[in-house]
Amino acid sequence: MVKGTFITVEGPDGAGKTTVLNIIAEELAAEGYPIVQTREPGGSPIAEKIRQIVLDKKHTEMDPRTEALLYAAARRQHLIEKIIPALEKGNIVLCDRFIDASIVYQGFARKIGIDEVLKINRFAIENTMPDLTIYFDIEPKIGLERIQKHRQGEMNRLDLETMEFHKMVREGYLQLLDRFPDRIKKVMADRPIEEVKTEAKKLILSLLVKR
Amino acid sequence: MVKGTFITVEGPDGAGKTTVLNIIAEELAAEGYPIVQTREPGGSPIAEKIRQIVLDKKHTEMDPRTEALLYAAARRQHLIEKIIPALEKGNIVLCDRFIDASIVYQGFARKIGIDEVLKINRFAIENTMPDLTIYFDIEPKIGLERIQKHRQGEMNRLDLETMEFHKMVREGYLQLLDRFPDRIKKVMADRPIEEVKTEAKKLILSLLVKR
Repeated sequence: MVKGTFITVEGPDGAGKTTVLNIIAEELAAEGYPIVQTREPGGSPIAEKIRQIVLDKKHTEMDPRTEALLYAAARRQHLIEKIIPALEKGNIVLCDRFIDASIVYQGFARKIGIDEVLKINRFAIENTMPDLTIYFDIEPKIGLERIQKHRQGEMNRLDLETMEFHKMVREGYLQLLDRFPDRIKKVMADRPIEEVKTEAKKLILSLLVKR
Repeated sequence: MVKGTFITVEGPDGAGKTTVLNIIAEELAAEGYPIVQTREPGGSPIAEKIRQIVLDKKHTEMDPRTEALLYAAARRQHLIEKIIPALEKGNIVLCDRFIDASIVYQGFARKIGIDEVLKINRFAIENTMPDLTIYFDIEPKIGLERIQKHRQGEMNRLDLETMEFHKMVREGYLQLLDRFPDRIKKVMADRPIEEVKTEAKKLILSLLVKR
């Protein structure tokens, strides 16, 4: 039924994925591809309110499973309101982070378990798995330095986690890469933006040609 | 590890379960039992904020799976902040609605599927299933009439559902009763409060004696 192509990008903050995605989206649109670029909560008022609860720095008592369920809820609403309608119209949807972020952050780094978090996210997304996921890989130390330079010290609750946590996140993404080799492709992100973009765009174009 | 006893009451609005639970809690406390009475969101600020999103009448675009995930998230946080600490201290926790409400409302009446909703709720509660659940059974028509009289017309988003929906809710509870006959016990709620209370209290006391 769904005619479009669903592509997600993943990776830690500071890997430059959002910057690269913006450039690719612009270029592909200019080349005539029907592009819809989005990120959670994606302009869904309900998803936005859910995300506000998760990101509120005052909520130090939030349990990791509560957090995982809230992310899944926001994801569901964004999917229903924005991603599925765009796919049904035949668009190429480029989404900045999706299910893998939850699996890695809550499932692996917060130790709930990859399969446990996968389970509630499959409930949330049903059959709408990405056709392609590009993982931007970077050393945690380099990624964190980039974030801090960029934001000039303004950090949210998740940024405040320790370096140890960020190392766990990378390890989690690498495990997912092993587990879903057909869907997830790695791009080394510690290089000039132009090189990273070229490689990521090539992955997207090869998928579009195949379909 | 958990020393206390966890008892939940279930049933549609208008079955009188909250009134009966209040009386039983008061009587048991007067008789010297260590009672903790609660209901979701149970004074947890995070769970309260989640519940506000679910109950907001403006959110007509809310998907049933989003709703189910939000209830599970609020449930988790209430469990962690209130129910588990009370059980660990050896209390008898009486909770007004819990996991079965979600299974029936979202899983059965909204047709997501009982097993699907059970899955995300098991993620939320892990091993903390109630030791006893008392289901207050009543004809949907009688229940709805009671609500409308009581609230003088002030209804929330869920109350506004059709009579058909309320019939589905009852059918769902009856199916759960068949499925978990050891845990869930039915009390007919279309009788004088005093009779209903006596029967429900007897169920609770017989459990406390056994343990």
